Amino acid sequence: MAEATKANQTNDNPSHLDQKMNLSTGEPGTETIASELAAIFGDRMITTEAGCAPYRKDESFHVARPPHAVVQPENAEEIQEMVRWCARHRMPIVPRGAGTSLEGNCLAVCGGICIDTTRMNSVIAVHQDDFHAVVQPGVTRRQLNNYLKGSGLFFPIDPGADATLGGMAATRASGTNAVLYGSMRENVVNIELVLADGSLIRTAKRPPKSAAGYDLTRLMVGSEGTLGVFTELTIKLYPVPESILSASCAYETMEGAVSSVIEMHKYGIPVARVELLDEHTVGAVNRYSKTDFAVAPTLFFEFHGSEQGVREQVELTGEIVRENGGSGFVWAEMMEERNRMWRARHDVAYATKQLRPDGKIWATDVCVPVSRLAECINETRRDIDESGILAPIVGHVGDGNFHLLLMVDHENDEEVRAAEALHRRMVLRALEMEGTCTGEHGIGYGKLDFLKAEHGDAIRPMRLIKQALDPQGIMNPGKIFE
Amino acid sequence: MAEATKANQTNDNPSHLDQKMNLSTGEPGTETIASELAAIFGDRMITTEAGCAPYRKDESFHVARPPHAVVQPENAEEIQEMVRWCARHRMPIVPRGAGTSLEGNCLAVCGGICIDTTRMNSVIAVHQDDFHAVVQPGVTRRQLNNYLKGSGLFFPIDPGADATLGGMAATRASGTNAVLYGSMRENVVNIELVLADGSLIRTAKRPPKSAAGYDLTRLMVGSEGTLGVFTELTIKLYPVPESILSASCAYETMEGAVSSVIEMHKYGIPVARVELLDEHTVGAVNRYSKTDFAVAPTLFFEFHGSEQGVREQVELTGEIVRENGGSGFVWAEMMEERNRMWRARHDVAYATKQLRPDGKIWATDVCVPVSRLAECINETRRDIDESGILAPIVGHVGDGNFHLLLMVDHENDEEVRAAEALHRRMVLRALEMEGTCTGEHGIGYGKLDFLKAEHGDAIRPMRLIKQALDPQGIMNPGKIFE
Repeated sequence: MAEATKANQTNDNPSHLDQKMNLSTGEPGTETIASELAAIFGDRMITTEAGCAPYRKDESFHVARPPHAVVQPENAEEIQEMVRWCARHRMPIVPRGAGTSLEGNCLAVCGGICIDTTRMNSVIAVHQDDFHAVVQPGVTRRQLNNYLKGSGLFFPIDPGADATLGGMAATRASGTNAVLYGSMRENVVNIELVLADGSLIRTAKRPPKSAAGYDLTRLMVGSEGTLGVFTELTIKLYPVPESILSASCAYETMEGAVSSVIEMHKYGIPVARVELLDEHTVGAVNRYSKTDFAVAPTLFFEFHGSEQGVREQVELTGEIVRENGGSGFVWAEMMEERNRMWRARHDVAYATKQLRPDGKIWATDVCVPVSRLAECINETRRDIDESGILAPIVGHVGDGNFHLLLMVDHENDEEVRAAEALHRRMVLRALEMEGTCTGEHGIGYGKLDFLKAEHGDAIRPMRLIKQALDPQGIMNPGKIFE
Repeated sequence: MAEATKANQTNDNPSHLDQKMNLSTGEPGTETIASELAAIFGDRMITTEAGCAPYRKDESFHVARPPHAVVQPENAEEIQEMVRWCARHRMPIVPRGAGTSLEGNCLAVCGGICIDTTRMNSVIAVHQDDFHAVVQPGVTRRQLNNYLKGSGLFFPIDPGADATLGGMAATRASGTNAVLYGSMRENVVNIELVLADGSLIRTAKRPPKSAAGYDLTRLMVGSEGTLGVFTELTIKLYPVPESILSASCAYETMEGAVSSVIEMHKYGIPVARVELLDEHTVGAVNRYSKTDFAVAPTLFFEFHGSEQGVREQVELTGEIVRENGGSGFVWAEMMEERNRMWRARHDVAYATKQLRPDGKIWATDVCVPVSRLAECINETRRDIDESGILAPIVGHVGDGNFHLLLMVDHENDEEVRAAEALHRRMVLRALEMEGTCTGEHGIGYGKLDFLKAEHGDAIRPMRLIKQALDPQGIMNPGKIFE
């Protein structure tokens, strides 16, 4: 227990809430806090410096102070007890899944108790005829898809990392095939969660649609743990497509690539993935993955459907891409070929890393109306080139969403400042074009500055909701709002 | 102006708020209220009893007291002025579109000012490449689709009535083709609205997706005017399908019909409409529309897609329906045949009315997981038959959503009580089956009783949000919450 106090003393960002926390002795006049928590969690409570250290990070470059303690609940009741305890002690609560967030969303910037949900990883029910799965929040998307093998159903949302479904819902995650299947916004049916006062609610039952009262489900999706801790989710499943085909195509210009996608949408082609790699990314991919894609703006497509339907989609897409200056449109039917292409796409981060082994990746994303995407990417590209920073671009072009992978030496202040300025210009450019400061990573604490720039006066009702549901401000403080 | 005072004196439901309202003299110590409003709205303000009378009703059987006054703003600034005035005087505000709601959603149950948005009926912009339309709230769905003619785009959501898009968003409306295109929940990109304090906010910009902050758009969709008055909406459009085919099919059992739809979903058939009519409805339709559908549980299908894709959908559906005991599967390619079938479906209310000319239709809806739909309909059917009340069933079976059209003589107390009991049993049955008390009509004040039964403790955060955003309770009071 002494370790926790020690961790407390070595905080990076001491907070006024620290004085509330002394796991070894408890507050004056209260029972011994540590023994209270130990009575609930036993050895599923971590208070040592070494044990808490991994919780200082997510998959981004952000590093925060460690939480005061980590607990690993196994059911909703334990989360309720933990939240009630934190409410009594005005202690921050930081929910965490697989820790794959990219904006510090699950870091204990104000200290407090990290609720690690990874032990709550049971699939509770699959309602085959309703295309619903009921899961605990710590189930990861791959785990769920393994569980579903042989059922004819799958869960499509794929943010790259093997994130937990609770975390994906909390950050309103999406990924490569949101263009067909939507993001977590469209794919969460209901959420059971513990509110800041320790009460347990369910946002809805399981009807395919409802007009009964406020849409609490959608309010909770994307709330990043600032309104409650998720204890169970019902999510949508989809039939495994009979046929899957992939294709790739190189373009002379970014405009040609984006126009192709707009055209495909006009023809009602239900493309399942359409990923954009700029020429710098393709170069890096070729070197790392030993592929030989033409070094030019490139689209990777994936089509889902019946055998006949998919062939029709591919043929029509072939015509559209040629009309838009695309060349070398080749499609890959074989699983092996397809996997090779998509593995190359998934390994973009590693390929980028190899470009500059001394740098660290700063992954960021924005999203704009598709009509502005080519312009936004081109201006950003020019800005990157002028800045001298290495930063490949990849995008979920069907959604107007693209990522910048800034390779930065975080020890080099000048470089960090240049990257920050570049980042800021990109975000403001996206907002200028009626876009958003983040398509799928969330605000966390990495994008606090931009929420106001994006939403203006609409921040006020957001804050009012936060205050109404969490008057003490104990739920993941320092995230979304400053 | 004397008329308003008179209307005030003849209220059906006098409210404590009435004392605040005296349009002819104003409150003691304040300027003359009527002249304040007249200065803004001129002859776009209605205060006469005769002028206000039509606003006592919507398309349901509900009748409320008239509003104290009706104003017809032409822009957001006028709505802001009206809301600020109401906030100063603690006067209820009741937003209203085409008045086609079915649960009294737009009636002035507590009196107050009705904000009639029908003059705000401009299509502000169509972003062709983004598939977005920006509209004022008083634009109706037919008006928008007429405007879009020739553009290759259309707005699919079709609740039957020619509702305004503001009203549709406010009640989270959907209709016959939500199974493919979603409800208003999925089809509103952002909303500009006036909050209870008169401030004007926009819930989002126009990115296809975003992870930046709370999803205010989804919170406002379905809020039934209780959180603000909509002044502008951006909504999604879709490419007009190359080909449309319709089909119908009769079943021996309700289970066969529902199983067909589940099976179609498993095969990934993207059916655009799939409507269920029970045998009573088919009988009424045949008599009214001079059709000759077999008097049995019947499905009407519509398929959208490419020519080849639609044919494939129809063929596969034909196989599925036969395996599930469907017979007489016939498809209608010709526009005329298709229109005849869908007109018959749209005229179900008139057909029902003809069954009992002395009755009035009480239209209500519930929605359950599709796996429970056949059971829910069958039990409801048995209950109806035992009650002796005439009540055809029609349903959007792909969504698990069905409607009961109760034909009731509202002068006959015993009959009304029997209908109410039947209605209550149907709603509680749907809730028991993990469904909702309303799939698409909203709570209004007709279903106040059931919100708590459906949401339990989740009512509390809903109320906290309401109080936070509308502390005086002036926004459409008496709706959603008691």
